[in-house]
Amino acid sequence: MARGKISKLKVMMLGGVNEIGKNLAVIEYENDIIVIDCGIAFPDEDMLGIDLVIPDITYLEKNQDKIRAILITHAHEDHIGALPYVLRLINPPIYGTKLTLGIIERKLSEHQLPNTPTLNCVQPGSIIKLGAFSAEFIRVNHSIADACCIAVKTPIGTIVHSGDFKLDITPIDGKMMDITRLGEIGNSGVLLLMCESTNAERPGFTPSERKVGQSLDTIFNQHEDKRIIIATFSSNVHRVQQIINTSVKYGRKVAVTGRSMLNIVGAAISLGYMTVPEGTLIDINEAKKYKPDQLTLVTTGSQGEPMSGLYRMAFSDHDKVVLNGRDVVVISAHPIPGNEKLVSRIINALIKNGVTVIHDQIADAHVSGHACQEEIKLMHALIRPKYFMPIHGEYRHLYKHKELAMYMGMDESNIFVTDLGKILEIDKKGARFNGSVPSGKILVDGYGIGDVGNIVLRDRRHLAQDGLIVIVASVDMDERMILSGPDIVSRGFVYVRESEALMEKVRTLSYNAIESCLKNNVTDWMQLKTKVKDDLTKYLYNKTKRKPMILPVIMNV
Amino acid sequence: MARGKISKLKVMMLGGVNEIGKNLAVIEYENDIIVIDCGIAFPDEDMLGIDLVIPDITYLEKNQDKIRAILITHAHEDHIGALPYVLRLINPPIYGTKLTLGIIERKLSEHQLPNTPTLNCVQPGSIIKLGAFSAEFIRVNHSIADACCIAVKTPIGTIVHSGDFKLDITPIDGKMMDITRLGEIGNSGVLLLMCESTNAERPGFTPSERKVGQSLDTIFNQHEDKRIIIATFSSNVHRVQQIINTSVKYGRKVAVTGRSMLNIVGAAISLGYMTVPEGTLIDINEAKKYKPDQLTLVTTGSQGEPMSGLYRMAFSDHDKVVLNGRDVVVISAHPIPGNEKLVSRIINALIKNGVTVIHDQIADAHVSGHACQEEIKLMHALIRPKYFMPIHGEYRHLYKHKELAMYMGMDESNIFVTDLGKILEIDKKGARFNGSVPSGKILVDGYGIGDVGNIVLRDRRHLAQDGLIVIVASVDMDERMILSGPDIVSRGFVYVRESEALMEKVRTLSYNAIESCLKNNVTDWMQLKTKVKDDLTKYLYNKTKRKPMILPVIMNV
Repeated sequence: MARGKISKLKVMMLGGVNEIGKNLAVIEYENDIIVIDCGIAFPDEDMLGIDLVIPDITYLEKNQDKIRAILITHAHEDHIGALPYVLRLINPPIYGTKLTLGIIERKLSEHQLPNTPTLNCVQPGSIIKLGAFSAEFIRVNHSIADACCIAVKTPIGTIVHSGDFKLDITPIDGKMMDITRLGEIGNSGVLLLMCESTNAERPGFTPSERKVGQSLDTIFNQHEDKRIIIATFSSNVHRVQQIINTSVKYGRKVAVTGRSMLNIVGAAISLGYMTVPEGTLIDINEAKKYKPDQLTLVTTGSQGEPMSGLYRMAFSDHDKVVLNGRDVVVISAHPIPGNEKLVSRIINALIKNGVTVIHDQIADAHVSGHACQEEIKLMHALIRPKYFMPIHGEYRHLYKHKELAMYMGMDESNIFVTDLGKILEIDKKGARFNGSVPSGKILVDGYGIGDVGNIVLRDRRHLAQDGLIVIVASVDMDERMILSGPDIVSRGFVYVRESEALMEKVRTLSYNAIESCLKNNVTDWMQLKTKVKDDLTKYLYNKTKRKPMILPVIMNV
Repeated sequence: MARGKISKLKVMMLGGVNEIGKNLAVIEYENDIIVIDCGIAFPDEDMLGIDLVIPDITYLEKNQDKIRAILITHAHEDHIGALPYVLRLINPPIYGTKLTLGIIERKLSEHQLPNTPTLNCVQPGSIIKLGAFSAEFIRVNHSIADACCIAVKTPIGTIVHSGDFKLDITPIDGKMMDITRLGEIGNSGVLLLMCESTNAERPGFTPSERKVGQSLDTIFNQHEDKRIIIATFSSNVHRVQQIINTSVKYGRKVAVTGRSMLNIVGAAISLGYMTVPEGTLIDINEAKKYKPDQLTLVTTGSQGEPMSGLYRMAFSDHDKVVLNGRDVVVISAHPIPGNEKLVSRIINALIKNGVTVIHDQIADAHVSGHACQEEIKLMHALIRPKYFMPIHGEYRHLYKHKELAMYMGMDESNIFVTDLGKILEIDKKGARFNGSVPSGKILVDGYGIGDVGNIVLRDRRHLAQDGLIVIVASVDMDERMILSGPDIVSRGFVYVRESEALMEKVRTLSYNAIESCLKNNVTDWMQLKTKVKDDLTKYLYNKTKRKPMILPVIMNV
C-alpha cells in the first residue's frame, strides 16, 4: 500500500453478469484477494464446435500471490466447472461444504493437474480467516444440497454474496436457509450485498421442492402397473431422494443410469446426503429381473442432451433399457431456454414408442432452485445493505433486480449494475466504478483452451453457411504458364455430381483468372489469389446466391 | 379407372404432419386431384446454411394433368410460402379468399415464374366445381384475416379440412368462425375430418384477439408520455388494426416499418381489410416531426430475427429510429420454440438503451391463433366425422389430438395418425393406410432448390465443428519424389499464428506419409490420400481432441 493512500476495497465480476453462467467474483483489499465460485458457461449457438466457456482469469494469474482462497457456494457446473482449467494456472486453497467438495474432488480426478489442489471443508457457521478477510458460509436452499451464501468481513465492512438460493420452508433435508443468521449479519451492518438475479422477473415465491414429491406421489399412484423412468438434473440430490422415497412407498426398486447421475448419487450417498433403505438401489443390469411395476429408473437427459440416458432410450440406442407401452417417462425439469426443440424431439420419439410422457406442461414435476421476487425482497429486507450489486443474470435480470432493490427503499446511487471486469471501488468516502481488469470468454474446444477465437469462429460460421471450394493449380512463374490444374475440390457447397456444369464453369473461370494474371505479368501471389477469389465469388453469388469460402492454392513448381 | 375396380378416395399429406410447417394436403379420386395449402417450413438447427424447406412434390409433378386446383386456407408462410417454388414445376389454378390472394400476388411478383399463375378469388359459401370434387370455403378465425376451412365434396363423401383456426366469439372484423355452416355440414354427414393439432396439448379455449386490445389500452394509458414501438407478426392484420385503433384513441400517429410489415399492411388497406382514419398513417421519414407521445411505431422482429426492424433498432443500426429512455417497446408475440435466446438478446439490448420493454412475461400482449382443446372438441362435436386424421403438428400433437377425438367418442380404429407421403385410402368398405408416395424435405439455399442434401449438410456440420486442413503437395510419380510442399492451409481449426509448432508437426507428418507411400511404391491416389488423412486425423485427435476435415490435394507434375 502506497503511503498516505486510502485503502480501497475492490469488487470485480469475471463472470456471471450480463450472461448466464461462468460465475466468478473477485474481492480484493490491499495484498489480499479472495475468489467466490469458478464456473463454466455453455457456448452460444454461434460458437460453433465449442465445448464450453470459461472466464478470462488473466487478472488472477498476475496476482496469484495475493489470492488467499477460492470459496465455492455450491457444486453446480456454472460455479465449479472452470476449476479444472483455472487450477492449471493458479492453485489457491479451495473452501466449500462437504458435498460441494465431494463433487469437486470427483470432477478434478478426471483431469490431470500440475499441482495437487488443496480442498478445505467448511461447516456453515465457522469463520475462516483469509488474510485481511474472514469468511462465513451460511446455509441457503437451492436445487443442490449443501449450498451456501457467504459473508465476507473486510477491513471496511461486510460483503454478503448470495450464491444461488431460494427459501424452502419445508426442505427435504430439514435444513432451511439460515435467515436468522442472515438477519443477524444484516443487523450488524452490511456494506455490500451481491445477490443473484436469475428469477428477478418472476413474481411471488418459488415453490418448495416438496411440491415435486406430491406430484411424484400422484404420478406413481396413477401408473402403478407401469415402469416409471424419471429424467432429472443429476445434481439435484433432493429430487433423487424424493424419487427414492416415493419408490420405496410404492414398493419399487430404483436403478440409476447415466454417468453424471451415477457420479453424483455415489458422492451423495457416501457422504451421507442421501438416505437409501437397504436393498432399494439395484444395478441397471439387474433391472430385467423385475417386473415393470416393481421398478423406477432415474436417468439424465432432462434437457434433451444428445447421448444422455433419456436420449438413447428414446431413440432405441440404450444398451440396457428398451422402452415401450408399459413405460411412463417423467421429465422432471423445465427446458432451459434454447433446449426446447431438443426436449420436444425426445418427447415425440418417446410417444412414437408408445410411452406415456409426463412433462412440465402436464404436471408440476419440477420447481425452480432460484429466488423469485418475494424471496429476493426478503434477502434485501434481512441484509439492508449500504451498497448493492445485482449478479448472476443477463442485463434484463440485473436491471429488474435493481428495480426491486429500489422498491425496497434503496437509493439508485447506491446500486451498481456492473459488467465483466469492471472494478467497483469502495472506501470510506463512498463507492464508485473505477477502471477495469481483463475479462471475457475463453473458449474450450477439446483440449484447446483459448486457441479458438474470433477469426477461427468466423471461418467456422462461413464454412457452415455455404461450404468451401479449393482451387488447386501449379504454375511455372518463370515461363508464365499453368503446368497443371486448376483442379476444383468442394465440400459443403453443392452436391457435385448433380452440378457438373457449374463446377466446370468454376474451373474455366479459375483458369482464365490465373492465365490473365500470368499474361499481365502479375507475379504477386496475393494479387493472383485475390483475382481468382473475386472472380469466383462474384460468379457464384450471381448464379447461386451463395458465398462459399474460396481457397486458391497455387504452387510454383 | 380400371373396369370393375372399386374407386378409391386417396388422402396424402406431403407436409404438415410430424413436423411444424410446410403444410400440403393432397386429395385424389380417379382422375382428379386437389391440393390444399402449399407452405414452407423453417430449417432445423442442424440444416446449416439452409434458408427454408419445401415439400417434395414429385407425386404432383407426375400427376400434374390431374390437378384441378390448389386451395389456400390462409396467407401464412407455412401455407403459401412454397408456391413460388412449386409453381415452377406445376401451374394449376389457385383458389383463395381476397386477402389471401392479395398477399400471394405480392409474394409471387417477387419471383420470376415460367408461367403466369391463375388466381381465382372465392367467397366463403360459394361452391367451386373441381372435376369430381366440389369445394366450399367456410370462414374461421385465425391470427390472419380472411382465413377459411374447406369442405370438399367427393363422390363417396365429404372431407372437412380445418386449415388453422380458433373460435373468436368477439373477432375484430366482426366475422366469427361460421360454426353454423360447419354444423350444417356435420348434420349432412362427413366422411373424413382433417383437423389441425398445434395447440392440442393446451387445455381450455384460446382467448379472443380483443383481449390484446385491452392490454394495449392499458399499456398506452400507462405510457402516455412516451413513444410506443410495437413489434408483432406482419401478417396479423387484426393486431395491427387494434394498434391503429388504440393509437387513434390516444391521439397518436402511426408509422409502419419493416419490409414485410409494409407489404401486408399495404395489401390489407388496399383490399379493405383494415380501416385507417385519414391522416393516421404517416411515413417513417415524417416521424421525427412528432413528439414521442404523439407517435406509435409498428415493426417486425417479434421473434428476434436478425436484420428485422426491432433488431436493428435494438442494436442502434436502424437508419430512421434511435431508441432511448423515452421509448416503450411492446413485443406482441410469444417466442416460437427455438427463438427464445434471440428474443432475449434483443430485450437485453433494449433495456441497456434505457428502453422500457413489455414482453409476454409482463403483459398479455399476445394471444394464440390456434384452437386449444375445447375448440378442437367443438370442431369434432359439430362435424362428427366417420373417419378422422389429425394434421398440422409434431407427433406429440397429433397423438394428443387422437386422444381428444377418442374422448369425443370416436373409435380408435377410425382415427388415422398419418405420416408424410402415406396414402389413406377410403372406399365403401372402409378406410386404411395403403402404400405411400414420395415425400420429404427439399432444402432451399439461395437460388438452389434441392441441391443441398445429406452429404453437403454432413460436410457443413463437419466443417462447422472443427474446421479444415488442406494439405497441398506436388509429386513426380515417375521419379517417386516430392517436388514441392506439402503446404498446409487451415481454416476454422486453430488460430494458426499461435499454433506454429502444431502446424509444423502437421507438415512433417504429411511429408512422411507421402514419402513412405512413394518409397513403398504406393501409386494409387486414393491410398496415398487415405494414408495422409489417417495419420493426421489420429495425431490431431490425440493432440487436440478435434477432428478437422482433412483435404489432401496431391498433384502429379
